[in-house]
Amino acid sequence: MTDLLALTAELCAIPSVSHHEKALADRVEDDLRSAAHLEVERFDDTVVARTRLGRSRRVVLAGHLDTVPPFDEAAPHIEGDTLWGLGSVDMKGGLAVLLDLARTTPLPAIDVTYVLYACEEVAQRHNALAGLARTRPELLRADAAVLAEPTAGIVEAGCQGTLRAEVSVGGRRAHTARPWTGVNAVHRLAPVLAALDRYEPRVVVLDGCEYTEQLQAVGIEGGVASNVVPDRATVTVNYRFAPLRDRADVEQSVRGIFSDAIDLSEGDGIEIIDVAPGAPPALTHPVLASLVAATGTPPRAKLGWTDVATFAGLGVPATNFGPGDPLLAHTPDEHVSRRELEQVRAVLATLLLTD
Amino acid sequence: MTDLLALTAELCAIPSVSHHEKALADRVEDDLRSAAHLEVERFDDTVVARTRLGRSRRVVLAGHLDTVPPFDEAAPHIEGDTLWGLGSVDMKGGLAVLLDLARTTPLPAIDVTYVLYACEEVAQRHNALAGLARTRPELLRADAAVLAEPTAGIVEAGCQGTLRAEVSVGGRRAHTARPWTGVNAVHRLAPVLAALDRYEPRVVVLDGCEYTEQLQAVGIEGGVASNVVPDRATVTVNYRFAPLRDRADVEQSVRGIFSDAIDLSEGDGIEIIDVAPGAPPALTHPVLASLVAATGTPPRAKLGWTDVATFAGLGVPATNFGPGDPLLAHTPDEHVSRRELEQVRAVLATLLLTD
Repeated sequence: MTDLLALTAELCAIPSVSHHEKALADRVEDDLRSAAHLEVERFDDTVVARTRLGRSRRVVLAGHLDTVPPFDEAAPHIEGDTLWGLGSVDMKGGLAVLLDLARTTPLPAIDVTYVLYACEEVAQRHNALAGLARTRPELLRADAAVLAEPTAGIVEAGCQGTLRAEVSVGGRRAHTARPWTGVNAVHRLAPVLAALDRYEPRVVVLDGCEYTEQLQAVGIEGGVASNVVPDRATVTVNYRFAPLRDRADVEQSVRGIFSDAIDLSEGDGIEIIDVAPGAPPALTHPVLASLVAATGTPPRAKLGWTDVATFAGLGVPATNFGPGDPLLAHTPDEHVSRRELEQVRAVLATLLLTD
Repeated sequence: MTDLLALTAELCAIPSVSHHEKALADRVEDDLRSAAHLEVERFDDTVVARTRLGRSRRVVLAGHLDTVPPFDEAAPHIEGDTLWGLGSVDMKGGLAVLLDLARTTPLPAIDVTYVLYACEEVAQRHNALAGLARTRPELLRADAAVLAEPTAGIVEAGCQGTLRAEVSVGGRRAHTARPWTGVNAVHRLAPVLAALDRYEPRVVVLDGCEYTEQLQAVGIEGGVASNVVPDRATVTVNYRFAPLRDRADVEQSVRGIFSDAIDLSEGDGIEIIDVAPGAPPALTHPVLASLVAATGTPPRAKLGWTDVATFAGLGVPATNFGPGDPLLAHTPDEHVSRRELEQVRAVLATLLLTD
């Protein structure tokens, strides 16, 4: 039996900040090529390995190779049965499980495509899975997909969509000693912040999972000079919305939330910066239903956006399931336990070995 | 009689954006050195010219050589009796009047020191008058001083002080899909903007002039990343306060205005960035009283900060009086009329020729 904690530590010891995944991709490719039952292809720093057993079903098991930038110089280290280090949660624990399954499961009951890809932690235009979905979509075709993102060993179903918008208000410049000759755009942001304060999260239940929508300011800016009444100020907001809502519906919601807080005749406006739709839980799909059953724990909604939506865009039902507490992702406190890794491997092995 | 409109146009045609006043200083120095009754000294791009007639009183007539950066490529142009162009108001009209008086008034009834200086329109640390006040204060000693800043030919007495402060609020970072695990600092700015909205300008009357205090946001910022609940947000405010208030009093006012809007236990705070005290109107001083009388118009308060405060700091009572509508300063619509220039020259000539 592979020591998954040691394997995760090995993978953590290979730095792979986004755009710098080559060394880790080399290691992963070597490991996969050493397994005769896998057909391996590489695209830049993304590696795809498949069984070709002619099974009636195929599942994709996927994970990203990259991490966010390091918080400090600390090397990964093991204390007892816990590994501390950058990437231990997001998501080299998941990668270790996938690598181990790939090497040690030559005859799964369903065909498997392992997709280990680059650049998930940066802007979507760099995402190598999205790139593969455009250039080689047939490689991602499957009955279902599981992303081994950290979910604490619980199925986190589907994912919410995300929208960014800039809510801008206008004004008229003036000398700050004579402000009545102008209009202060920063002061005019007060009703915009009040609208954010009044916003009540809406909960949408799908397949028994509660998708709680959220609206948060993620940026605010304005100002011309230290003696000038500013003529423009902007709040950037991030809206997290439930699966199955389309772009027009979501845009209308955001515009509605701020409609009383802005005045188009004053040059105010709302600009939608980007929208990424979510993905439904799809838990009635037999493969995903088997996965949930194998965990023995009720599933819950994935509130953030993940590449589950990329698979959904290809018509592949997908879900999130992996080791590690998702609240530790992108923090300096990342750590994962041997038990978490082994539980996830056991569940995924059950999935692969059951027709 | 000098054509003051033509002279102003000539000065406007010599670009003199702050830090680039050399060509204009050369021209001014040449003009002043050609007058045998003046003792001329130059310090970088600042020129000081004095009569040494042994009169019982001395007045400083001062103006800055620099302009704000141009709004467009347009050259100054005269239409009828109006000159349009960058600096026509702020303050080459005033400079033309001072230059003309200097050359054509060899025997004033009071001694005169003309101070034509660089870098008034930029950060105070570059201000050449303030520099002269530190290095050669004796050159600025006088019974009174008049700054020929644009005041529409009305005495604008003293000047208000100005303070900048950063009002910052804290928070705790979180993923925007799980905002309840953090605290959104941008959302916490709402009460800070509400305090600005509630602020009621206070009016202080000194020597019959109404100093209306003001508090305005001049900048706002916050934000970490498009999917992160921000943990810090800041509003920069500019407070314009009446003359004769000391720094401690003014700081206390600003802290009081925001005391209910921030929470020190959440990491919020108010940082005072800079304070420049104002200057009292000093209209009971005989020279300044004569100036007001010569205008035939009631004086009013100067609401912005000017170098009147620099003279006040040296113990020299000072006031603002010059041609041009101050509301046009720093706008692309600057223009001055022949009548305005001639009125100001007539008033200042009366001042210089009356003992």
